[in-house]
Amino acid sequence: MSELPRVIIVGGGFGGLWAAKALSGKPVEVILIDRKNHHVFQPLLYQVATAVLSPGEIAYPIRRILHNAENIEVILGEVTGFDREAKTVTLDDGTQVSYDYLIVAAGARHAYFGNDAWETFAPGLKTVEDAVEIRRRIFLAFEIAERKAALAGTQEPLNFVVVGGGPTGVELAGAIADIARQALKKDFKAIDTTKARVMLFEGSDRVLGTFARELSESAKRQLEELGVEVHLNSFVTNIEPGRVQVGNQWIDCEVVLWATGVAASPLGKALVAETDKAGRVFVEADLSVPGSPEVFVIGDMASLKQENGDPVPGVSPAAMQMGTHSANNILADIKGNARENFRYVDKGTMATIGRRKAISDVFGIKTTGLVAWLFWLFLHVMFLIGFRNRFAVMFNWFWAYLTRERSARLITGDADELRDALIFMEGEPAAKEVFEFRRVKKAGTKTP
Amino acid sequence: MSELPRVIIVGGGFGGLWAAKALSGKPVEVILIDRKNHHVFQPLLYQVATAVLSPGEIAYPIRRILHNAENIEVILGEVTGFDREAKTVTLDDGTQVSYDYLIVAAGARHAYFGNDAWETFAPGLKTVEDAVEIRRRIFLAFEIAERKAALAGTQEPLNFVVVGGGPTGVELAGAIADIARQALKKDFKAIDTTKARVMLFEGSDRVLGTFARELSESAKRQLEELGVEVHLNSFVTNIEPGRVQVGNQWIDCEVVLWATGVAASPLGKALVAETDKAGRVFVEADLSVPGSPEVFVIGDMASLKQENGDPVPGVSPAAMQMGTHSANNILADIKGNARENFRYVDKGTMATIGRRKAISDVFGIKTTGLVAWLFWLFLHVMFLIGFRNRFAVMFNWFWAYLTRERSARLITGDADELRDALIFMEGEPAAKEVFEFRRVKKAGTKTP
Repeated sequence: MSELPRVIIVGGGFGGLWAAKALSGKPVEVILIDRKNHHVFQPLLYQVATAVLSPGEIAYPIRRILHNAENIEVILGEVTGFDREAKTVTLDDGTQVSYDYLIVAAGARHAYFGNDAWETFAPGLKTVEDAVEIRRRIFLAFEIAERKAALAGTQEPLNFVVVGGGPTGVELAGAIADIARQALKKDFKAIDTTKARVMLFEGSDRVLGTFARELSESAKRQLEELGVEVHLNSFVTNIEPGRVQVGNQWIDCEVVLWATGVAASPLGKALVAETDKAGRVFVEADLSVPGSPEVFVIGDMASLKQENGDPVPGVSPAAMQMGTHSANNILADIKGNARENFRYVDKGTMATIGRRKAISDVFGIKTTGLVAWLFWLFLHVMFLIGFRNRFAVMFNWFWAYLTRERSARLITGDADELRDALIFMEGEPAAKEVFEFRRVKKAGTKTP
Repeated sequence: MSELPRVIIVGGGFGGLWAAKALSGKPVEVILIDRKNHHVFQPLLYQVATAVLSPGEIAYPIRRILHNAENIEVILGEVTGFDREAKTVTLDDGTQVSYDYLIVAAGARHAYFGNDAWETFAPGLKTVEDAVEIRRRIFLAFEIAERKAALAGTQEPLNFVVVGGGPTGVELAGAIADIARQALKKDFKAIDTTKARVMLFEGSDRVLGTFARELSESAKRQLEELGVEVHLNSFVTNIEPGRVQVGNQWIDCEVVLWATGVAASPLGKALVAETDKAGRVFVEADLSVPGSPEVFVIGDMASLKQENGDPVPGVSPAAMQMGTHSANNILADIKGNARENFRYVDKGTMATIGRRKAISDVFGIKTTGLVAWLFWLFLHVMFLIGFRNRFAVMFNWFWAYLTRERSARLITGDADELRDALIFMEGEPAAKEVFEFRRVKKAGTKTP
């Protein structure tokens, strides 16, 4: 039985993991609790959704990452509540675990602006499961179009809609355009995949709105070069099976992906702390919750203003810095030193758009296109956790670059799901007649 | 509209794919229908189930494999029936498609000897989805044991049961033993993973019963060296949540895997043809169905005797040879040539057991251990479809060999599934009390 102060970390994302690393080998007993057994390298999740990488290449077992840290225990479990007075954390099965210090780093999900029913029609991208589901929808849409074309002899429109022009929306839209125009074009014989349309709807007047305006404009041009139709000042006001409403106009589409809105983990409210509209907990300058100096909230769950008045952005470097900082403040307490206030160090930002297309603003230097893309590539490979993953990712990228192939094009799920999808996309089962299969010659399918 | 004879191939496994390859560029119109978009390299499926490889590394889009075959259309869909009189195939949505020739190659699944309810407790390994589910159960069992040990301070037994001593059972048992004894031992702190027991139950008097007796005996020894408890002449007579009955004895276990029994696809019965007990269709020597010379049944769905009276075995080389042979008989018809009878060419067999452990009987030369294992490795890499996959697999194998690591240890699924699993394995939710986490020192958990 340990006499050391116990720190419970909730969440094994960038924030929780960096906190754990900072506490490794220190005079504390650490318990890290996550409902997944793996840490996900979120910045590359869209590459799983678009079949360049496999889930195993961007996710790594949390206990493997921390296996050398003798004072850290990793527990698979879902935290369902807290008792700040009794200083306990409640797990899914009702078990309560006591703490001396608590770091809550459970992240955020996408929000549907109060229309949670849309999630069924328009999945977002936060977990490995989300990525596999999005991959399934993208490639299933092509399969269903091929099947219909082979049976009926005509190609119906194939539309992809991405809602939101932030980094994830831009990455997804660019990648789907590449899939339709390059990766699949030789594999489908009844349909011409290059005719698929990719539409990106962004409510504000520019994509990647956190970047300088000139970079946003470049990003829009680069997206358009890839074949994405970028619609600015366009709010999606409703989503139904097979169509989205933008303003007053309904647009038919086979796949809708959701890449906007942020809702912090409901664990912020479970703390009974004051939160902003997105559910983020207002934290003190030392990252602790007002009234509970032993409780820290970090990463996408925390709401904190920088000295210049801007909020600390919900990006992975901020989560990592907060993780390290909260851990250091705990260690300061233990040593009897004063805590320090958190100060976000912005090392620059970049966003990738597609093959040889990106924007970057690092150390005050703005670049676009190939240079920004190479920079993005280099940084992300260097950052990937675990040598083995880094190597496999590099190999897959190199291969995808050379061949323009997307190898991880698995549609998983059972036959029922396929039938559901067919009915979902076709409206109702086809009439029971004997079809004469007709091969659609690509030259013959040109539409004016 | 084509005037060429139309061949419909049902199934994109080894049989269907080899038939399609033999018909590529020939004067026929081919439609290959599969309910998955990917061909699975079945011999390596157990490596996905045991976290060495990712699904994308052993599965490849069928239409990608056949993308150069101008006369082959690939359709994603499930075949639900046939009309041999009208010469049509019925799809999931009721669509009927007419054929001149039909090749049915829908394979087999494992059978539960009439106890289909056991499938929930003891999944088998035939698809990518099966492999991901088995992977989830194996690694979840260790996670739950760790969580219980960390909470309660004692390590409960952790038992894995594999039912069936054929190739899949042997591969799974060997791999789980390696996971417990090597791959995980440094990552878990509250439990000693090397104390996990792996039990293999085989109903007959030897494992790998299709091999020469001396090789079966070597395989048993090699399994035992890996730490697997091999029980021969042991029939599993019942399975319930958390335990299996062997003869009259109940054995508690956290994970049960099913690797015995074969049931051919129900499409054999849908053909209204005569089948054996396992649902395999009795075929003529030219592989056609009696009374319907234009309908062929091949691979694991076909029942055919060799000249020596032995049945053609349900192995992938036989499926490939039948695929090529049925296609050639169709082409013979078209040219006005006589059909040929199928003759299975046995090029030898091999089975892998674990790291540097295997048996092999090729060209009449029997080998065991390292030599057999290297031979197995070489052949399987050479056979893997697609250069890119072959390369990625080699890299992962090399890495796993060097580090003894299993990198693809993802437990996917949502929080509800975790709760269900906890309740399933723990019996009922733990009492709502405040646990004092206690780290179990490995030295302190030794049981007599």
